[in-house]
Amino acid sequence: MGTEPEAARSRLDRRKARTRGALVSAARTFLAQGTTSVSIQEITDAADVGFGSFYNHFATKDELFEEAVEVTLDEWGQLRDAAVEGLEDPAEIFARSFRMAGRMQRLMPEQVKVMLNAGAAILVNERGIRPRALADLRRGIELGRFTMPDAETAVMLAGGVLLALMELLESDPNSDDAAVSDFFAERLLISLGVEPHEARQICGSPLPGVPQLA
Amino acid sequence: MGTEPEAARSRLDRRKARTRGALVSAARTFLAQGTTSVSIQEITDAADVGFGSFYNHFATKDELFEEAVEVTLDEWGQLRDAAVEGLEDPAEIFARSFRMAGRMQRLMPEQVKVMLNAGAAILVNERGIRPRALADLRRGIELGRFTMPDAETAVMLAGGVLLALMELLESDPNSDDAAVSDFFAERLLISLGVEPHEARQICGSPLPGVPQLA
Repeated sequence: MGTEPEAARSRLDRRKARTRGALVSAARTFLAQGTTSVSIQEITDAADVGFGSFYNHFATKDELFEEAVEVTLDEWGQLRDAAVEGLEDPAEIFARSFRMAGRMQRLMPEQVKVMLNAGAAILVNERGIRPRALADLRRGIELGRFTMPDAETAVMLAGGVLLALMELLESDPNSDDAAVSDFFAERLLISLGVEPHEARQICGSPLPGVPQLA
Repeated sequence: MGTEPEAARSRLDRRKARTRGALVSAARTFLAQGTTSVSIQEITDAADVGFGSFYNHFATKDELFEEAVEVTLDEWGQLRDAAVEGLEDPAEIFARSFRMAGRMQRLMPEQVKVMLNAGAAILVNERGIRPRALADLRRGIELGRFTMPDAETAVMLAGGVLLALMELLESDPNSDDAAVSDFFAERLLISLGVEPHEARQICGSPLPGVPQLA
């Protein structure tokens, strides 16, 4: 006894996870298109799941869209972790994650559009990038790398510059993603209190390959 | 002959303008709340106008919401003009408009929410603030006040920092609007290439009263 019901349960769990994933994925596509005024029927059709299964996972459309934004933020957070692995200096970590984020825009336009369409409240969303950036900035302030009054102010400044970088790359497909990202990272470091010549040096250092989602 | 039909026509024009204004105003309220998935019926109810009159003014809901965002941007543009009147130096103009914008957030939270909820595409919207900021930045680059590769890059950087400032003030009602605005303005000037000591001086200068909408 035990194995058969357990196998059945885990099969059921996998199916539920697949349904949930399909709903989140469909919601992301709508968010990336800037179309959130769709019906639940349209969402379940796009996800290719039954209408009723929506309510096994989400109470409202807003709840699904929120989850879709947060899953996207979590993915960015994971990519940032991969990108900065091995670095110790908060200024280098910050520059690297910024320079990589700009380059990733060209490879993951849908994920980027989700964030660009989400409104400025994305800057205070506690999932994904913000907690990591806060920790980097806090350490950078403690170490005297950044001359900011507090990490909260710094994370908003950095987040606004990141949104602007992403929107610039999104709205101008011909712009040079590497050059623009490095320039924004450099000017951000300067605004955080790093000396201009050092900011330029840090933002001109070689980069590893762009990480991929697991 | 002439005066009566003309009076009737102008009465009709005024009524049409009032209806249009009521629709735009209702749309702004929904945008500020972050609720754009309302029906046209809900919009005309909120505007207290007949359902059918919607289509005399707008072909789609999206068209109305777009107009509501653009009217808001135009208002900000007018306020910025009033705030910087008499200034000549692009760095001072930029600092002043930034410092005033932060202070205005507390007085016009609805207008600010419209912009915060609109998504990062607001940074490339050609109405209102952007053309004015572009002109200031272009002149500042020509005069050597700003060390930026071009005004387009500069306007995105500045716009991102402005969005972040507004979101910070919106999400933290206890923050000191004057201190935070002046700090963001100072760091923005530095990132545009103004020397730190001069940026501090410019952003600490006395301000006129906050302008009001006509």
